[in-house]
Amino acid sequence: MNWVNSDLLFLPVGGSEEIGMNANLYHYQDKWILVDLGISFPDETDLGVDVLLPDFDFIKSLGKKFLGIFLTHGHEDHIGAIPYFADQINCPIWGTAFTIALLKRKLKESNNNTKLVLNVLSIDDKIELGDFIIKTVQTSHSIPDPVSFLISTNEGDIFHSGDWKLEQAQNLNENFDLDTYRSLANNGILAMVCDSTNSLVDGRTPSEDFAYQGLYETVKDKKGAVLITCFSSNISRIKSIIEIAFKTDRSILVVGRALLRAIDAAKEVGYLKNIPELLNLKDFNIISRSNILVVATGSQGEPNSALSRISRNGDKHINLIKGDTIIFSSRKIPGNENAILKVQNRFLDNGIELITDEDKNVHVSGHPAREELIEMYSFIKPKIAIPVHGTREHIEAHAQLANDCQIPNVIKPRNGEIIKLNSLVPTVLDKKNFTTNVFDAGEVVPIDNARFVSRKHTLWNGFVHISVVVDIDGYLISPPLITQTGVSDKNNMEDFLLDCSLKIESFFNNNEFQNKISDDEICDYIKRNIRKDFKLSFIKRPTINVHLIRI
Amino acid sequence: MNWVNSDLLFLPVGGSEEIGMNANLYHYQDKWILVDLGISFPDETDLGVDVLLPDFDFIKSLGKKFLGIFLTHGHEDHIGAIPYFADQINCPIWGTAFTIALLKRKLKESNNNTKLVLNVLSIDDKIELGDFIIKTVQTSHSIPDPVSFLISTNEGDIFHSGDWKLEQAQNLNENFDLDTYRSLANNGILAMVCDSTNSLVDGRTPSEDFAYQGLYETVKDKKGAVLITCFSSNISRIKSIIEIAFKTDRSILVVGRALLRAIDAAKEVGYLKNIPELLNLKDFNIISRSNILVVATGSQGEPNSALSRISRNGDKHINLIKGDTIIFSSRKIPGNENAILKVQNRFLDNGIELITDEDKNVHVSGHPAREELIEMYSFIKPKIAIPVHGTREHIEAHAQLANDCQIPNVIKPRNGEIIKLNSLVPTVLDKKNFTTNVFDAGEVVPIDNARFVSRKHTLWNGFVHISVVVDIDGYLISPPLITQTGVSDKNNMEDFLLDCSLKIESFFNNNEFQNKISDDEICDYIKRNIRKDFKLSFIKRPTINVHLIRI
Repeated sequence: MNWVNSDLLFLPVGGSEEIGMNANLYHYQDKWILVDLGISFPDETDLGVDVLLPDFDFIKSLGKKFLGIFLTHGHEDHIGAIPYFADQINCPIWGTAFTIALLKRKLKESNNNTKLVLNVLSIDDKIELGDFIIKTVQTSHSIPDPVSFLISTNEGDIFHSGDWKLEQAQNLNENFDLDTYRSLANNGILAMVCDSTNSLVDGRTPSEDFAYQGLYETVKDKKGAVLITCFSSNISRIKSIIEIAFKTDRSILVVGRALLRAIDAAKEVGYLKNIPELLNLKDFNIISRSNILVVATGSQGEPNSALSRISRNGDKHINLIKGDTIIFSSRKIPGNENAILKVQNRFLDNGIELITDEDKNVHVSGHPAREELIEMYSFIKPKIAIPVHGTREHIEAHAQLANDCQIPNVIKPRNGEIIKLNSLVPTVLDKKNFTTNVFDAGEVVPIDNARFVSRKHTLWNGFVHISVVVDIDGYLISPPLITQTGVSDKNNMEDFLLDCSLKIESFFNNNEFQNKISDDEICDYIKRNIRKDFKLSFIKRPTINVHLIRI
Repeated sequence: MNWVNSDLLFLPVGGSEEIGMNANLYHYQDKWILVDLGISFPDETDLGVDVLLPDFDFIKSLGKKFLGIFLTHGHEDHIGAIPYFADQINCPIWGTAFTIALLKRKLKESNNNTKLVLNVLSIDDKIELGDFIIKTVQTSHSIPDPVSFLISTNEGDIFHSGDWKLEQAQNLNENFDLDTYRSLANNGILAMVCDSTNSLVDGRTPSEDFAYQGLYETVKDKKGAVLITCFSSNISRIKSIIEIAFKTDRSILVVGRALLRAIDAAKEVGYLKNIPELLNLKDFNIISRSNILVVATGSQGEPNSALSRISRNGDKHINLIKGDTIIFSSRKIPGNENAILKVQNRFLDNGIELITDEDKNVHVSGHPAREELIEMYSFIKPKIAIPVHGTREHIEAHAQLANDCQIPNVIKPRNGEIIKLNSLVPTVLDKKNFTTNVFDAGEVVPIDNARFVSRKHTLWNGFVHISVVVDIDGYLISPPLITQTGVSDKNNMEDFLLDCSLKIESFFNNNEFQNKISDDEICDYIKRNIRKDFKLSFIKRPTINVHLIRI
């Protein structure tokens, strides 16, 4: 511990070296609060896991000094890790209505701790916690109810932006003016911790109305069925799509569990109140194709999604044919390009017209582009700029921009760095070695757990099972049994395995083997030799497991 | 067989539904020739293989009717599959000098068939083979000695473009004028089979001089060491880099086997003859950093490449530090985005300046953009346009462009389609079901081989080995042995496995087990039950292998 109680500290747990896993700690007067606790997705599939989690050990070690979790909004990369750590969280959680509504559904689906205390925040709420005061500041993003936090302490105020853009979603009744941000600076802001997602994108991010218009123009002239895929939590987009369906005389069908969950949560908290009834999927075949608008999950090419199923003509109810149109009202999250391309190519193969945001204005981002970042710096005028929420490339670009905005101190944080804010120049006091975690076999384990190494090795090499039965004196009492899985099915495999068995038998003719060396040494000897033979015959080094049974 | 001997047929074996694996067959008078035989790379890593190959079975089945292979240029996606099928190829291979020089080196490295007959083609060579006449037409690309082929028959001429661009590489003394293409059309061209790679890119592809200038402007002001990574076979780029090194007073170091192989091949055929001597890598540390220019392979983020090693500070000789610059003089091949990003982020993490073709003009493509395609259609004026070399999206865009150019017939081919060209309207006569192959365990096998299914299942679930020894009457004579690999290392695993062993023991107390059911049924019963328990305790369904040994 290189800090004292009165230090105001910022400690990024995740999200400062990758897209996703956002989790940021603040310390003051020996107490800690956390903003967000998100997941990320592996960009390689040779790990055999589907979710990445931030390191929770340090947070857990804080015990009663850890006072609360504040959620900026309901996206997976901000709330997704909560169900995995639910039984280790002993403090209350705060979030706006839609965020909490989504979180509740996720906790329920994962059958996790219902004892969590979930508090609903309203705009401008002030929560006093230890020596922190956390104020909820309205913002706009691609999900309902997003907020920034103004975290006040006696050592200075921090503006934690969360994910934001300046253009409001009119159809969610978002309503704030830029004076809100200007007035924050009245008392002086010590540090701004800010979204870097679009720090490489010039200009401004347009409003949702831009996507609405682009979608409407695209849909209105189509003759066949239209399917639009978008992010399930983008309720503003879904409202746009529903309105476009109404204006173009199409009925709405919704496919996909995540979409239905988000729509349900939106209804609960007062959005989507007066929407027309959603059609039953069974009605797809009885309505004229020109009167159908389907909304489906799967814009990232997820193999188990509704969209992927439809692209393979494998859905029970929905099928697209030549003359129909598929619209991707979404962006490609880096890492998903191939999966998306596969789904898109299947539609193209079937003669379906494909429209993406590269063809028409059918999507807008939820993050600030460079001009908006510059504007925000002019409003908030922080003494310290701390770009987060991005890879090194995003954070570097954002830091350069903050420098150009004449922000006196610009920090490029890394996960695990303990950064003291209340000194003349912000200083890294220490660095925690945080490990990315994964959820596997019902538990959270570090990504470098041995099981992944052996599984990955097996993916490339297959595995071999050898059983050897010997009597009390170490003599073989049946032929060694050897089988392989996933190495090769070449014709010569059976003969090869027989040769291996004979070879193992010959080992036991050697006196050394008979009780003179340990069982472990025998097994190792067999493994080593048989692996060599596999290498020679099949250019493979399978995982070999030897069962030596003495009777 | 739905065709007659006199049919002029086009049959894409690979490359018409993906990037890579280019291989295109032509038939006339009961004889076949093949243009190119390339590989592709898997875009998913959960297969445990690193190379994809086109289906060779049909080609093999042609026997003596298969007369020859013609190579347009030396890129992996055009020649890379030859070493894998070398022992099945019984016909001569033709290619230009650099292509054959590269192929020879690849065949040598893979220890394959040196009996292959490799013929060197010059520009304007005419090869008569069966009733085909194949003429070599000079073109330009991102590798030395690329050619198009004019394939003439009594039923009409086909222009097979290969990979091309219109702007020549001056520094390779490429020299052809557009009249060459215009004159081809004098006798009328039946069909043009043409590169679709950049069919979504507007405008024209600039000449190599554009990249030269951009690289020079970028390098000249740098104070530290500069490392440039590019495609190893891009000899024109390498010449540019060597010249820039000379002009900026830097010595050249070359890192990476593929680069050295390509430079060696280029020297053999007369390129790179008078280049300054390459420095020994050991000299890296004795030269001032401002006098160093390193060229390295690894622009696609390949984990085993020189560049990846350097980014991890793991190279014996070369290391980059703050103040140095890394330049990616290359494009991102779709599917490699994440791997590239990882390498780039490591450099950024170490404070090294990163420059890509998004920042500066440090790369040009080797493929024709839309304006060049339009120009080529105006030269060749084919009756039939056949876009190849791309995914469905590329081929669709190229086909639309050909339509807009008023080409009377536009075909969007799919791998395996047998397309008759010599009829009023080109017609698909038949479709072969070609399977993508992979190279695994020393053999070429279909991608849907069972071994990959079991390996992938194991990647996600781990595996379990059970050995059970019973006497002649079916009574257990030692406790069942059960071990797991890669499932979980939770604390309770040992107890769980002991419980499993006891459970299996209890099965044998059941009379049914004692010789009343077959060994296979016993093994299945054990598997089924133990898998259920694993599912309950670890949310995993491991692959289970049971050895039942009777003594």
